[in-house]
Amino acid sequence: MAMTNRQLKLAQRPNGLVDEATIEHAEHEPPEPRDGQALVRVELLSIDPTIRTWMDDVPGYLPPISLGEVVRSVGIGEVVASNAPDLPAGSRVFGLVGWQDYAALDAATLTPVPDGADPQKVLNLLGITGLTAYFGLLDVGRIGEGDNVLVSGAAGATGSVVGQLARVQGAGKVVGVAGSAEKCTWLTDELGFDAAIDYKSDDVTARLDEEFPEGIDLYFDNVGGELLDHVLARIANHARIVLCGAISAYTDHSKHAPIRNHINLITRRGTMQGLIILDYADRYAEAHAELSRLEAEGAIKTREHVVDGLEQAPEALNMLFTGANTGKLMVRVR
Amino acid sequence: MAMTNRQLKLAQRPNGLVDEATIEHAEHEPPEPRDGQALVRVELLSIDPTIRTWMDDVPGYLPPISLGEVVRSVGIGEVVASNAPDLPAGSRVFGLVGWQDYAALDAATLTPVPDGADPQKVLNLLGITGLTAYFGLLDVGRIGEGDNVLVSGAAGATGSVVGQLARVQGAGKVVGVAGSAEKCTWLTDELGFDAAIDYKSDDVTARLDEEFPEGIDLYFDNVGGELLDHVLARIANHARIVLCGAISAYTDHSKHAPIRNHINLITRRGTMQGLIILDYADRYAEAHAELSRLEAEGAIKTREHVVDGLEQAPEALNMLFTGANTGKLMVRVR
Repeated sequence: MAMTNRQLKLAQRPNGLVDEATIEHAEHEPPEPRDGQALVRVELLSIDPTIRTWMDDVPGYLPPISLGEVVRSVGIGEVVASNAPDLPAGSRVFGLVGWQDYAALDAATLTPVPDGADPQKVLNLLGITGLTAYFGLLDVGRIGEGDNVLVSGAAGATGSVVGQLARVQGAGKVVGVAGSAEKCTWLTDELGFDAAIDYKSDDVTARLDEEFPEGIDLYFDNVGGELLDHVLARIANHARIVLCGAISAYTDHSKHAPIRNHINLITRRGTMQGLIILDYADRYAEAHAELSRLEAEGAIKTREHVVDGLEQAPEALNMLFTGANTGKLMVRVR
Repeated sequence: MAMTNRQLKLAQRPNGLVDEATIEHAEHEPPEPRDGQALVRVELLSIDPTIRTWMDDVPGYLPPISLGEVVRSVGIGEVVASNAPDLPAGSRVFGLVGWQDYAALDAATLTPVPDGADPQKVLNLLGITGLTAYFGLLDVGRIGEGDNVLVSGAAGATGSVVGQLARVQGAGKVVGVAGSAEKCTWLTDELGFDAAIDYKSDDVTARLDEEFPEGIDLYFDNVGGELLDHVLARIANHARIVLCGAISAYTDHSKHAPIRNHINLITRRGTMQGLIILDYADRYAEAHAELSRLEAEGAIKTREHVVDGLEQAPEALNMLFTGANTGKLMVRVR
């Protein structure tokens, strides 16, 4: 059987959103798995904001994607040939599969997906999204009983889990910031947020004053931008700010809004800390167990937004930055 | 015996440095200590940058000094009359005595100074200065073996202790930033700093690149301003930034330079945290013991800058902002 491996490679670094010049579509034969490798047929790709940062020629927590390289992306697939004894053909795995049909990957970089697990849930609540919410809120944010919590990008995959997890952890008040009335309604009516602020139509600073008369104890920042400075002006004593993402500036570095109110971190003895979940790899199992339990109990609801077809991956990535998705975005490869 | 109590009161909030209109000089009889109070004859005042922040009508970790109120200041004095059984006349105490000759203070707010202790040392290494260095470096900064450390305001009272303490704690490299060649020489030749950067004459960013090719692990920030942004651009993974003060902006709020490189806190998983030592009051004894031991061993050297005369207190405060002092600034009241 002749198999074709469609690959989406980085042809040119994007300036802003990904466009036609960014990606080169190629077709090859699938690679041969070397010793210790498995050949994975990719089924589902996780579309995350961080992919866009890897396309820039800027040093980060991982190196930039090289020109001509398949776009890096985590995803799930089935092992179709294996030179790794622990990963027999037919098993399902999670890893950095990339935007392609087939990937030959070192077994050590792959995580088996439990039999019967729903791949969409694995990529969402048990993937980068859920892990980021879990370690960001509990470890970096050190959430405590009664904390008044603000979440930006609250209708996004991570933000929506953060808010629900804050509620479970005994937060005093949980307020989300999102970009449409419909998203705000979803937060308050379905996910149990106490309030939601529509940054496109509300007077954001007035709403922050109204919702947090005693200051913000914990801010989980998914978006960056000027909202961070507004929050710094309103933190409570011993506030914690979790810097998880700055999606507002990923496609336009000039949007890294300067902040001026960081002096309040002294007065209020606040902490602002960044988060990359790779640092918590030895505790993923703990997070998986807890998040699975909460979802089974109905305490955490998730929403997935599945786009069909590998070729749609670039357009799907752009959706994250135009706000076109609600819930976890992924691409079904075929 | 008729006693006169000279008092320096806040007459007008300063705009920039303190000037003649800021302070009203008054003379009264000393107050009568009430039940549970001691009457303290003030001997030595600690002149700290935070006093300037209390003069502004801005909410802080303590309320602003009211107009007409004696300027708030910590200091040391002798109990000359007492209605507090634990503080007999003749004992020496440390507390918020204010810019005056006599203060009637609740015994609960006063800390006894051990017999034989040098009041200048108490105000310096064992006072706000040393405590700030100790808890800032060890608790907030979580200094670890091999950390490459940068200290701003390094020739100041706190900064000079921070650098020496970092050396004792096994720092890899300790670099100070100060405002004159003489101060820089003091840091490297007498206090054991590995290098010093003169921010008035050196190319600061070039020197940072040269001294920290692998990035800055720990930055102890006493000054604020644009240096903080230069540091954020150069932090190592898991860097810690201790925000202790922003002296560069205390007399001119427009100098709170905006920062743009906080996005690196994500990439580098860095932490930026503010510090007020009041939060560590239950551990002062631990710090006193350790700092006294290090000084006795010669591992930490301090320098005091004593100005004579209560009336000189306003001018002394200004010296902190013009950089006219080297070492801990204090005023001998009479």
